[in-house]
Amino acid sequence: MDKEELLDMSPAEFRSMARRGEWTSDTVGKIARGYVNANLAIVPQDVAFEFLLFCTRNPAPCPVIDVTEPGNPHPSEMVAKEADLRTDLPRYRVFENGELIDEPTDIKKYWRDDLVAFLMGCSLSFEWVLEAVNIHFRLIGDFFTSVPCIPAGPFHGPIVASCRVFENSDLAVRALQVSSRHPSMHGAPIHIGDPAAIGITDLSKPDAFAPDPPARLPEPGETIMFWAAGVTPQAVALQAKLPFIITHKAGHMFIGDQLAQEQAAL
Amino acid sequence: MDKEELLDMSPAEFRSMARRGEWTSDTVGKIARGYVNANLAIVPQDVAFEFLLFCTRNPAPCPVIDVTEPGNPHPSEMVAKEADLRTDLPRYRVFENGELIDEPTDIKKYWRDDLVAFLMGCSLSFEWVLEAVNIHFRLIGDFFTSVPCIPAGPFHGPIVASCRVFENSDLAVRALQVSSRHPSMHGAPIHIGDPAAIGITDLSKPDAFAPDPPARLPEPGETIMFWAAGVTPQAVALQAKLPFIITHKAGHMFIGDQLAQEQAAL
Repeated sequence: MDKEELLDMSPAEFRSMARRGEWTSDTVGKIARGYVNANLAIVPQDVAFEFLLFCTRNPAPCPVIDVTEPGNPHPSEMVAKEADLRTDLPRYRVFENGELIDEPTDIKKYWRDDLVAFLMGCSLSFEWVLEAVNIHFRLIGDFFTSVPCIPAGPFHGPIVASCRVFENSDLAVRALQVSSRHPSMHGAPIHIGDPAAIGITDLSKPDAFAPDPPARLPEPGETIMFWAAGVTPQAVALQAKLPFIITHKAGHMFIGDQLAQEQAAL
Repeated sequence: MDKEELLDMSPAEFRSMARRGEWTSDTVGKIARGYVNANLAIVPQDVAFEFLLFCTRNPAPCPVIDVTEPGNPHPSEMVAKEADLRTDLPRYRVFENGELIDEPTDIKKYWRDDLVAFLMGCSLSFEWVLEAVNIHFRLIGDFFTSVPCIPAGPFHGPIVASCRVFENSDLAVRALQVSSRHPSMHGAPIHIGDPAAIGITDLSKPDAFAPDPPARLPEPGETIMFWAAGVTPQAVALQAKLPFIITHKAGHMFIGDQLAQEQAAL
């Protein structure tokens, strides 16, 4: 399948392909142009309230799109009624007591009646929106900040932020306006300007995701903005060293049936 | 204390007065002009996940402002750090198995270590915002609609909507724009126009709250809009016939430390 065919594919077609095990690599900017991407975190029912509370208290890094009932792998209420979260992402990560034990392409054998799945908004959706309105930027990468999340139960830790650079202030203003309309994709930036103000000392060394090859660093006259990133809830869930948790593998996203633009708040 | 003194009072001063039992009547449009009002629902921990899930799935009627940890009566994370939800509202309602058993002015004797308090946004906050920007309207009252909430666990039922009438379309357009900026106060209208389209047959007979004296009904050329109302989560919690639940008494609101305008999404 060529590049344009993948971009023109519907979310349902892609999920079906992933379900059949025919796509196991990352989806970043490659699949179903314009459709919402979502981060996945699956936790046992006994910590589901505290994890949902953590997300409620930290909507910038953890914008909840859908939460399933315990044992139900279908995110039927809000997105993609036919989807099966056990099979429809290209690759997963399974953790026991904070240790990675498997990176399977489906999680059927790990599924349990007490598991609750959280789908959370993703900046990849927001990047489709920026692309659609001709706002260009350079993604520098994801960084741990000195800004703490509001804790809930065992869940705590810093906000992880993605750094984007805009060639001029006009583009940055437009990006701030557009992102403000999309709270389900991390909303407005959490910071404009000096990285040191949020505890980031070296933009050349992202802590989490980094593009390959690395993006050109900010130059004088450019505007730097930071958005809360979907890596945050995963980092927070892992540090809690839960007995059992499943996430998607970074970049191997769930793709829902709504266009990112459809989710604009106003 | 005269009318203007009450309107100029700070939220902390009002909560302190309620705590001392010196204000036990309703707060509607009378206290701390411009500050956020919140609906209160307190449920046992064993249904807290499902109730939070219900709110997450139905953000228009149930915009969560704060949720406390089990047993903690202080909504410290997001609003009014010093507040005590057991004493700082003027009047409460206590239900057992769906039956009203008490309407106390504090709930100290009912408080338990397993109780989780939910503060949810309120259209009274939104009305401060409308007043501040000179958008006038007539509040007709609250009505049960034929629009179902998305269920979660034992929680289900129709959206209850408040009906407001605007003398002309320009005012209605402005009200739609302004309310869209305030998702924490029920956000945009859920319906414009014909009440019958959402199952409301008689605007002269509100099902829940009705102003006294009744407002003049809509006339030709006026615009009718409906917003999801904070009565919804209470109605839903009551029909679930939980063994135990506490709410505020209608109109006897929690008043938080933020101005309603501060909570604008953008």
